[in-house]
Amino acid sequence: MPRGLFITLEGLDGSGKTTQIKRLAAWMQKRGLDPVIIRQPGGTATGDRIRALLLDSGATPLTPMTEMALMFADRAQAIAEVIEPALASGRVVVCDRFTDSTEAYQGGGRQLGSERVLQWHRLVCGDLQPDLTLLLLPSLESSLARARNRNERTTAQTGQDENRFEREQGEFFRRVWEKYHEIARRDANRVVLIEGNLTIDEVHEQIADAVSERLLAIR
Amino acid sequence: MPRGLFITLEGLDGSGKTTQIKRLAAWMQKRGLDPVIIRQPGGTATGDRIRALLLDSGATPLTPMTEMALMFADRAQAIAEVIEPALASGRVVVCDRFTDSTEAYQGGGRQLGSERVLQWHRLVCGDLQPDLTLLLLPSLESSLARARNRNERTTAQTGQDENRFEREQGEFFRRVWEKYHEIARRDANRVVLIEGNLTIDEVHEQIADAVSERLLAIR
Repeated sequence: MPRGLFITLEGLDGSGKTTQIKRLAAWMQKRGLDPVIIRQPGGTATGDRIRALLLDSGATPLTPMTEMALMFADRAQAIAEVIEPALASGRVVVCDRFTDSTEAYQGGGRQLGSERVLQWHRLVCGDLQPDLTLLLLPSLESSLARARNRNERTTAQTGQDENRFEREQGEFFRRVWEKYHEIARRDANRVVLIEGNLTIDEVHEQIADAVSERLLAIR
Repeated sequence: MPRGLFITLEGLDGSGKTTQIKRLAAWMQKRGLDPVIIRQPGGTATGDRIRALLLDSGATPLTPMTEMALMFADRAQAIAEVIEPALASGRVVVCDRFTDSTEAYQGGGRQLGSERVLQWHRLVCGDLQPDLTLLLLPSLESSLARARNRNERTTAQTGQDENRFEREQGEFFRRVWEKYHEIARRDANRVVLIEGNLTIDEVHEQIADAVSERLLAIR
């Protein structure tokens, strides 16, 4: 049994990953493939509970290190329960976020640094790397605009100082965005960068092209 | 402000840690100390949720790696929220289990190996080490007898094959017990090994002696 293909989708929140994963799954099914779709954090019963903890830690915020450890706890469980068995049985696995997200958000955004995240990755994931990563990265300006829209809703709810919150969020997203670009440059063989403000159809077309190429390569 | 003292209690389940921590806390309070008592996993709101996940993961067991990552997520939060602020303000912190437990249970019992646990420790805890570790280690035979008592209750409830369960549990506890001994030999300056089947009073006396000595050393 030839090993399956491990594909990850990456990008800032609101970059359209969910929509594109649905399109990609339909595209694969039309070609007789039966992909396993999983998101991180989440995707297992344990992962869903970890995700809930990450999204709402109650009154005290999680430290960046706690966040990172929880991300890798989720990942360890997903690899053992879902990803490895599926790849071993020859299936295609499409994962919504993987270690690149941890490197971009915790390593870049929360400033823990890439080296620390990559050490954790080696400890938890060993040699497991995506065969192909599709990185959706609209311009920083449009990403910031989306973050700003969300902020307006959040600050209205929480009564926080809107300017300070927005400035900090802006700096955070800039660091995430820049770290994603750094990863794309460093791992150019693995990462296909889909940049700019494209339509849903245009992004799907680039994704389908990249996936076709890899599928043909392993046949 | 001189830095406080970081004391950990370690040992197999049922070694009497909880009783001894209560005795030690009372002993300290009588001497005008106001110790911070914390357990791991747990001890913060996030830690309590992680503990619940570790104790009941539902239908699918956690992988040893998931367990370890959750232990360190809990630890990261406890260090930032409780342990470091208390030590910085000069207080004594008494922690029920710390990295030695992870090394003994996940590294030894679950066979992930010491090196992997110690790498995680360095990533999460940096230079933070207990000033003193009190390791309660009754004989392996009495530890196994306790495990056997628990097994009889567990297997009666779950209907598992009692012999197989007991054999596996016995081997697991033996590995944990041996790893604890290995840690005590390696870190002899830090770890005070309290061995044998002593009475509660005898154990308390050894603990009080060791703690006195360290308290006097930092005065």
